[in-house]
Amino acid sequence: MSERLVVIGGDAAGMAAASQARRLKGPGELEIVAFERGRFSSYSACGIPYWVGGDVGSLEELIARSPEEHRARDIDLRMRTEVTGIDLDRQRVRARDLESGEESWTGFDKLVIATGARPQRPPLPGIDAPGVHGVQTLGDGQALLDSLERAEGRRAVVVGAGYIGVEMAEALLGRGFEVTVLNRGEQPMATLDPDMGRLVHRAMDGLGITTVGSAEVTKILTGEDGRVRAVVTDDAEYPADVVVLGMGVEPETSLARAAGLPLGAYGGLLTDLSMRVRGYENVWAGGDCVEVLDLVSGRERHVPLGTHANKHGQVIGANVGGGYATFPGVVGTAVSKVCDLEIARTGLREKDARAVGLRYVTVTVESTSRAGYYPGAAPMTVKMLAERRTGRLLGVQIVGREGAGKRVDIAAVALTAGMTVDTMVSLDLGYAPPFSPVWDPVLVAARKAVAAVRAAG
Amino acid sequence: MSERLVVIGGDAAGMAAASQARRLKGPGELEIVAFERGRFSSYSACGIPYWVGGDVGSLEELIARSPEEHRARDIDLRMRTEVTGIDLDRQRVRARDLESGEESWTGFDKLVIATGARPQRPPLPGIDAPGVHGVQTLGDGQALLDSLERAEGRRAVVVGAGYIGVEMAEALLGRGFEVTVLNRGEQPMATLDPDMGRLVHRAMDGLGITTVGSAEVTKILTGEDGRVRAVVTDDAEYPADVVVLGMGVEPETSLARAAGLPLGAYGGLLTDLSMRVRGYENVWAGGDCVEVLDLVSGRERHVPLGTHANKHGQVIGANVGGGYATFPGVVGTAVSKVCDLEIARTGLREKDARAVGLRYVTVTVESTSRAGYYPGAAPMTVKMLAERRTGRLLGVQIVGREGAGKRVDIAAVALTAGMTVDTMVSLDLGYAPPFSPVWDPVLVAARKAVAAVRAAG
Repeated sequence: MSERLVVIGGDAAGMAAASQARRLKGPGELEIVAFERGRFSSYSACGIPYWVGGDVGSLEELIARSPEEHRARDIDLRMRTEVTGIDLDRQRVRARDLESGEESWTGFDKLVIATGARPQRPPLPGIDAPGVHGVQTLGDGQALLDSLERAEGRRAVVVGAGYIGVEMAEALLGRGFEVTVLNRGEQPMATLDPDMGRLVHRAMDGLGITTVGSAEVTKILTGEDGRVRAVVTDDAEYPADVVVLGMGVEPETSLARAAGLPLGAYGGLLTDLSMRVRGYENVWAGGDCVEVLDLVSGRERHVPLGTHANKHGQVIGANVGGGYATFPGVVGTAVSKVCDLEIARTGLREKDARAVGLRYVTVTVESTSRAGYYPGAAPMTVKMLAERRTGRLLGVQIVGREGAGKRVDIAAVALTAGMTVDTMVSLDLGYAPPFSPVWDPVLVAARKAVAAVRAAG
Repeated sequence: MSERLVVIGGDAAGMAAASQARRLKGPGELEIVAFERGRFSSYSACGIPYWVGGDVGSLEELIARSPEEHRARDIDLRMRTEVTGIDLDRQRVRARDLESGEESWTGFDKLVIATGARPQRPPLPGIDAPGVHGVQTLGDGQALLDSLERAEGRRAVVVGAGYIGVEMAEALLGRGFEVTVLNRGEQPMATLDPDMGRLVHRAMDGLGITTVGSAEVTKILTGEDGRVRAVVTDDAEYPADVVVLGMGVEPETSLARAAGLPLGAYGGLLTDLSMRVRGYENVWAGGDCVEVLDLVSGRERHVPLGTHANKHGQVIGANVGGGYATFPGVVGTAVSKVCDLEIARTGLREKDARAVGLRYVTVTVESTSRAGYYPGAAPMTVKMLAERRTGRLLGVQIVGREGAGKRVDIAAVALTAGMTVDTMVSLDLGYAPPFSPVWDPVLVAARKAVAAVRAAG
């Protein structure tokens, strides 16, 4: 007898789950129905800034697998169809065809919730005016590109200086705009400690991006045509021909909440290690709508990132398809860039460590991406946190030029393994003059951290 | 009462040991005498190919710390002074001033042997002819550069296709030479499995470097002026205006051997974890003259590499200076490049695994350095070995373009931690489109390895 799997959400987590389940079980064993309210499936939202900036030529390039390709693999993917309710008792979901407006119920044996995240959009006056854009979906990206063409002037204001904010600043710069980034915090990139954020701030200044810290947006002014004209903060007004919102996202779990499923402190679904929703035998969830375990702090966090969504989907698909896989958690690795400035972090910031009662030492070192004498050797700043007494690595932040960003992977693997900074000093990392100084910058930091741990007692 | 530390060898390991010991103990507590037979101290031999190739402008840039700088830190570094004997019973070394020819004894309380490695130079007819060059020392590099200027034609033959061989091929290409590499094995880069070596071979072909496999050099022909004219193998003759020898190195342990110190299967000194020579309370050794523990195979190996030499020196200096440090071993990481081709490896090759009785599976995947749609996404081949049954990672080899090489660090840390490929699949590595596909190439390989381990049973 065939079972039916229903998937809510046709992007990374949902469709990776569907695809993996399909690999393990043929259509005779498992029927798969997936609902997506948008017009696109399985696309790279992380690629939107590069499309807007012109590095990526077209929307199509960001689509990993089209609806037709999914259907060709016997996945009944229904586009422009929004799930409006989950009935767990009767194991069915209600969905509305957004074209026809028709609504109907679909039964499931197994359910995957992959509803993603929604951008934070505070209810400010003018925030819905033409010329004010989010960049969450491909549709958002297209609307922004159209808006950039229509804009009468070349002044862009980005609200928020997190990953999306700084990446969009680069994109807008690439499109010839004069860019101002308004940031609530003192320094950009709040996922870094402020001392490292300051380095990003300086580099953005150097690129000609104006970054304003401690700026609380209070309203958005529009012109006579109704289009955005300026962004107003508590103490200034910034003329704007286009505004991009990069204020972070929150889990899109309204359906899950209505169905009574367990949500965490950040509003994300709570799952077990197999990505099954806690306490529910036949419901899985993954991607930007769930919270994940932070392996360093031992706390649940919301970490919306395509790479996790893909892994979640893979794990869910394996388990739904009769296999076995788990997602143990994250260490909080992220990497980004603004033009040629690379920004990376993993593990805990100082405030994260304090929040969970860890005592720590920090060290910061300056080094270079290659041997100092080798052409292209670029400066790099590495900050490292280690636990007092034990010397356990707690986190690493890196700001630098080419070759800086992916070095964070060394720390990400070390964090996963629970390594101490003493152990890290002896790591046998790849060395040759075009690739690294004889002591890799991460090892230089580890050496200094060993001394700091000892000195702190 | 002041002790005396004697160091034999003024390059990375020896001078790092001296410097670290000096940091911990002032001249009132510890007298440090170091002997170096050459003209340079603390230099980057790994940088020589880039100096010869023109990427590094001058010899001076390769010197990390000059004799004068060492002396300014109260290290009595005696240049052009060769140690000719070690008398362990009477705790003294005999040294000859190479300028004056005078010989004298110097007593020690503690001894550090850092005599490095010597290039293999088989006793072939013509091997000492003008125009035939090793590239072990700065002096060798200068002689080669002079020879390149004097050469009447532009044909260069490199003997050996290991790291030095391929790096020198690039260097000579950069100097406008027509380059032929003669290699004993079938494929270049014997530190890779032959299937991965083949990729290097093809790429070298593409760069215009002729690589001849299974070529056993039998003699070197000279012209009427006595200068090299051709290299002869068992079945062909290769005209040459200059010849570079890159046939590997062996530990320079003739002094140690004469003194009766313990040597391993590769002729390198055997030490304990503190880099103390086994069985000798007051003798340490480090750098290219020692064997190191391979943490994956559990065997001693000879791994001549500047990064290890520096770590050894650091460890020796700490212990000699009254601190405490250990060098646990290596996992066999190495990275190199030929023009824009990056080559990296860590852990065991297939034959290494077989040699220690490990059963394994291998997988090879093709991926890219960045998201496929992002400009500059370059192809990359990753080969992974995992132990059967347990799934423990055994080794990784990577051949690709920009961004390929340093990815091997992920595997180097995972090997150090003894991770299984299952654990690796969940690694939280840095992801953003300019830095990686949504599944990092190493994770793609790990996923495939998990399946291979399961399939092999």
